[in-house]
Amino acid sequence: MQSHSLQFWFEFASTYSYIAAARIERVTTSVNVPLEWKPFLLGPIFREQGWNDSPFNLYPIKGRYMWRDMERLCQRYQLPWQNPSQFPRNGLRAARVACLVQEEPWCPAFVRVVFHANFADDRDIAQTQTIVSLLDSLGQPGLSLLERAESTENKERLRRQTEEAIQLGIFGAPTFVYGTELFWGNDRLEEAIEWYEIHSASRETE
Amino acid sequence: MQSHSLQFWFEFASTYSYIAAARIERVTTSVNVPLEWKPFLLGPIFREQGWNDSPFNLYPIKGRYMWRDMERLCQRYQLPWQNPSQFPRNGLRAARVACLVQEEPWCPAFVRVVFHANFADDRDIAQTQTIVSLLDSLGQPGLSLLERAESTENKERLRRQTEEAIQLGIFGAPTFVYGTELFWGNDRLEEAIEWYEIHSASRETE
Repeated sequence: MQSHSLQFWFEFASTYSYIAAARIERVTTSVNVPLEWKPFLLGPIFREQGWNDSPFNLYPIKGRYMWRDMERLCQRYQLPWQNPSQFPRNGLRAARVACLVQEEPWCPAFVRVVFHANFADDRDIAQTQTIVSLLDSLGQPGLSLLERAESTENKERLRRQTEEAIQLGIFGAPTFVYGTELFWGNDRLEEAIEWYEIHSASRETE
Repeated sequence: MQSHSLQFWFEFASTYSYIAAARIERVTTSVNVPLEWKPFLLGPIFREQGWNDSPFNLYPIKGRYMWRDMERLCQRYQLPWQNPSQFPRNGLRAARVACLVQEEPWCPAFVRVVFHANFADDRDIAQTQTIVSLLDSLGQPGLSLLERAESTENKERLRRQTEEAIQLGIFGAPTFVYGTELFWGNDRLEEAIEWYEIHSASRETE
């Protein structure tokens, strides 16, 4: 059975995912679209394409555009922005935590502070201590959550979720998914919501 | 001196350029944004990235997404669509003609019928006879225009225009350009126009 939610697939290293994560609840709440937060890893997907780095590094002409575009978009959406001194940063640890707490009401808040650390504060989200302190700042037990996030069982959970992304045909982040329909890129969020509204309404009247 | 127009850079083989070409005048005319139509070739740019084919063929996972996306987008914008039996088609000949007639008031109409032939009628735009008959259908002297388009001087014109695209940092199509600002992708047209409106107005009051 198809999920009733709009899925938001994101990767912590992804600049456009930062913007989408910051604005998605504002957009979906106003139109009553239930949202599922789906962290995954782009690394394994990129490696299957023969890429061992972000395409923005492998294709500098595209990278130059993206960095300028981020400045403009953050201005447009009134989001803080700082060119990260390292890109991409390894989002594995943060993704494992997000996967662990995916159903918690504070998961979106965690996702946003991680993105903020990476792209507004230029902090290294690959470091355990960064993730622990971000969890603590949300009033959550950082150390013990991180320990559970690093368990074999939870590592497997993230692997399965990344596998699910591959099965869906996801190749970049952010991607919005409803059923088998994919909308790739922050700039397609509004269209994904429009699609959701039309097609979830027609399901109800079946 | 910076151009006062919004530039629309397109490539005849590009599916997303088809959509942009079909809708751009409706969008820009309603807000009084002067438009420059800039045909160019993606081939030389792709080759510099190490690609000898469309990235949608080189990365099938991305290709699958694009073909489905085109169906959806054409439905959304109420444009005719037919999966082309060949992709990408060589747009060199059409681009040379478009470059030759770039300043003519019927240039946009020519651009649209070529895109329509490729993506709605599944006709081979690489063929001389296709281009000639499209020109004839617009009441233009097809054969003689094609001859002029294939002159050394005009070939050089298209080469220079593609060189200009590279200098601007263009890496895909469509791309909308105002001054040094690039907006890549059909889905960024509205943002490009918004940018144009804000920044052309501030120039006037300087």
